[in-house]
Amino acid sequence: MTRDEALALDAADALAPLRDQFVLPPGVIYLDGNSLGVLPTATAARVQQVVTEEWGQGLIRSWNTAGWMTLAQRIGDKIARLVGAGASELVVADSTSVNLFKVLSAALTISQADAPARKLILSERSNFPTDLYIAESLARERGFELRLADADELPALLDERSAVLMLTHVNYRTGRMHDMRALTTAAHAAGALAIWDLAHSAGAVPVDLHAADADFAIGCGYKYLNGGPGAPAFVWAHPRHAERFWQPLAGWMGHAAPFEFTPGYRPAPGIARYQCGTPALLSMAALECGVDSVLAAECRGGMAALRGKSLALGRLFAAEVEARCPQLTLASPRDDALRGSQVCFAHPEMGYPVMQALIARGVIGDFRAPDILRFGFTPLYLRFADAFDAAVHLQQVLDSEEWRRPEFNQRQAVT
Amino acid sequence: MTRDEALALDAADALAPLRDQFVLPPGVIYLDGNSLGVLPTATAARVQQVVTEEWGQGLIRSWNTAGWMTLAQRIGDKIARLVGAGASELVVADSTSVNLFKVLSAALTISQADAPARKLILSERSNFPTDLYIAESLARERGFELRLADADELPALLDERSAVLMLTHVNYRTGRMHDMRALTTAAHAAGALAIWDLAHSAGAVPVDLHAADADFAIGCGYKYLNGGPGAPAFVWAHPRHAERFWQPLAGWMGHAAPFEFTPGYRPAPGIARYQCGTPALLSMAALECGVDSVLAAECRGGMAALRGKSLALGRLFAAEVEARCPQLTLASPRDDALRGSQVCFAHPEMGYPVMQALIARGVIGDFRAPDILRFGFTPLYLRFADAFDAAVHLQQVLDSEEWRRPEFNQRQAVT
Repeated sequence: MTRDEALALDAADALAPLRDQFVLPPGVIYLDGNSLGVLPTATAARVQQVVTEEWGQGLIRSWNTAGWMTLAQRIGDKIARLVGAGASELVVADSTSVNLFKVLSAALTISQADAPARKLILSERSNFPTDLYIAESLARERGFELRLADADELPALLDERSAVLMLTHVNYRTGRMHDMRALTTAAHAAGALAIWDLAHSAGAVPVDLHAADADFAIGCGYKYLNGGPGAPAFVWAHPRHAERFWQPLAGWMGHAAPFEFTPGYRPAPGIARYQCGTPALLSMAALECGVDSVLAAECRGGMAALRGKSLALGRLFAAEVEARCPQLTLASPRDDALRGSQVCFAHPEMGYPVMQALIARGVIGDFRAPDILRFGFTPLYLRFADAFDAAVHLQQVLDSEEWRRPEFNQRQAVT
Repeated sequence: MTRDEALALDAADALAPLRDQFVLPPGVIYLDGNSLGVLPTATAARVQQVVTEEWGQGLIRSWNTAGWMTLAQRIGDKIARLVGAGASELVVADSTSVNLFKVLSAALTISQADAPARKLILSERSNFPTDLYIAESLARERGFELRLADADELPALLDERSAVLMLTHVNYRTGRMHDMRALTTAAHAAGALAIWDLAHSAGAVPVDLHAADADFAIGCGYKYLNGGPGAPAFVWAHPRHAERFWQPLAGWMGHAAPFEFTPGYRPAPGIARYQCGTPALLSMAALECGVDSVLAAECRGGMAALRGKSLALGRLFAAEVEARCPQLTLASPRDDALRGSQVCFAHPEMGYPVMQALIARGVIGDFRAPDILRFGFTPLYLRFADAFDAAVHLQQVLDSEEWRRPEFNQRQAVT
């Protein structure tokens, strides 16, 4: 492909106007929206409004007058539209890790009640480590065993000992995407529950929790939902489970009548009980702007159109890099159906300095130990010319050997 | 007292200049800083900087370049100065409820290891309900029993069955303050651990966790610390406990090497392991401004001076209300040593509409079911004339019977 051909794709792109929703630093090609999404132009003013008007002038009254009390559910209803959940089924709260603790805890309680002999939590060896830490912690606490396997081995391992299948839909390192529906069906056929972490899915790939008949889901607000650094996360429970048990983080925001201040915990109806403490309002307000930036695609074909462009961007980038950089090995699935919204390449030794050299050129991806160069493709604001240019920069970094410079070989806290 | 005498107290108040740090809505006397502190003038610009520069321009790079990675510990070190904790002993994370879950879980684990026969969690019947919900939840999970008692009964109930004494230092309804040192000593003498919730203490009354030899503490960022709605909370563990166990919310921010992405959880040294997921950065930035607004008193006598003014404000208000409003009964301790930074009055029937009528006049306190009119006194920004005027308004609301108006008798979500 030539650069002119990439520019022609941009000229024909019906989603191109969505880019105007965002602040993008000059000279930057941002391929890390899978780690921290970019800033929507609407966010700064909205956050300022919450700070100066709602907090500064409204003070405590804003819990009523500015809708703070129901903000978590209002944003939850918006995210629900992106992941195939129903209204009032999904709520924003806490962090992804804390929400995973809640739903895994609920799932283990349900499994324990229905099938006490089932003692296995099954997950993928290469799942996001935090998910495994939380599962390890709960397994030890509740007398379950966490069993890890490679993705392809999972279906065969589901059996009468399995309590819960806990997976991240799109792998954080490789971008490999599970078949949510098939694996959930397999879990149910074996009598197990299915929990899905949508951290790299919500806003990135079409998700239909009800079509998959999933049991629980959680997800992240600051990646493809553009909610800002550390934006609150979300949690969903299938309505068949939502009211069966309550989760152990029994905070006042999940109480049926939080202002009665009664001594015994009485969980709120439905998903609202998955809230715990007072939500971080400033971060919540920013999250809503981010979610709105994704919903803005609804009138242009929605998640299906975003998915089409994301795959096309990824294919273009992968093809150019493979043609230009024979030193690198594609580490993401070549098959569109198996790939999320990122493209990764591996190099056994120089992955880290190559990424630092790229970042110094303004092409921002990230490195995931031990050997992965990770590039996220966010169709809301990336152009085909960006994908093309990023591949050219990568080739230049390799051909010029500028990655050998000492400054690119010093590890920083966040890589 | 006359209003001129109150004005004279303000003219002589060495803390008076601290009020200039805050945005205060015109026409408002804000006596609800114990529920949501006011907006510091520095906050809006700082939050805007985080949004537009650090996030908008720095993007993912700001984890390194803007110090996001260590912000929770930097703010933690500042809060530590307000509660008698050492540097690197306290960290900002999650909500108060989630942090209570962490420290109570750790305390139960420690107690279980050291004295497995101890099965009681002892707390106050009138403790903040969320704290009791969390304790109820963990007690059920871990095979402990939550025993509730009145404040005066607590010392006698500590015995060889007690695992943990869990208390809120200043009662959220009445403002009654426990003797942290005496109760901690009594708990230790009985072989139990002591957990203190500092929600209504941090930034409000002098606290010395080390002098009291407390075991764990948590606290709130959005009350007297002026961190903004839903600001993250804090958590402290005595160094003798910090590394003994890890808490069950084993998220990546509490890992010893979060970016190694290794499958087994390896907790960070010290208090850092009490972090879980990615912190809500916008809310964290606002919290730091709020904490700074309290630390600004350090050069004017610090917490001791703030405490002196807070008590004086409370005494003035209580005396005026008792003289002017015989219908109301003082519900806070009259003894300064037993009272936090709030003054409460009770009325069996008309508490709610009286507070609504007061709020309509711009005198903002809050109502706590079933019968409490709650007034918080934040010496950083309240004047003696404010306390005087608030009492006059309260008298006028009662004498004019304007609280009988229908609009003041309609319950809102947040009261």
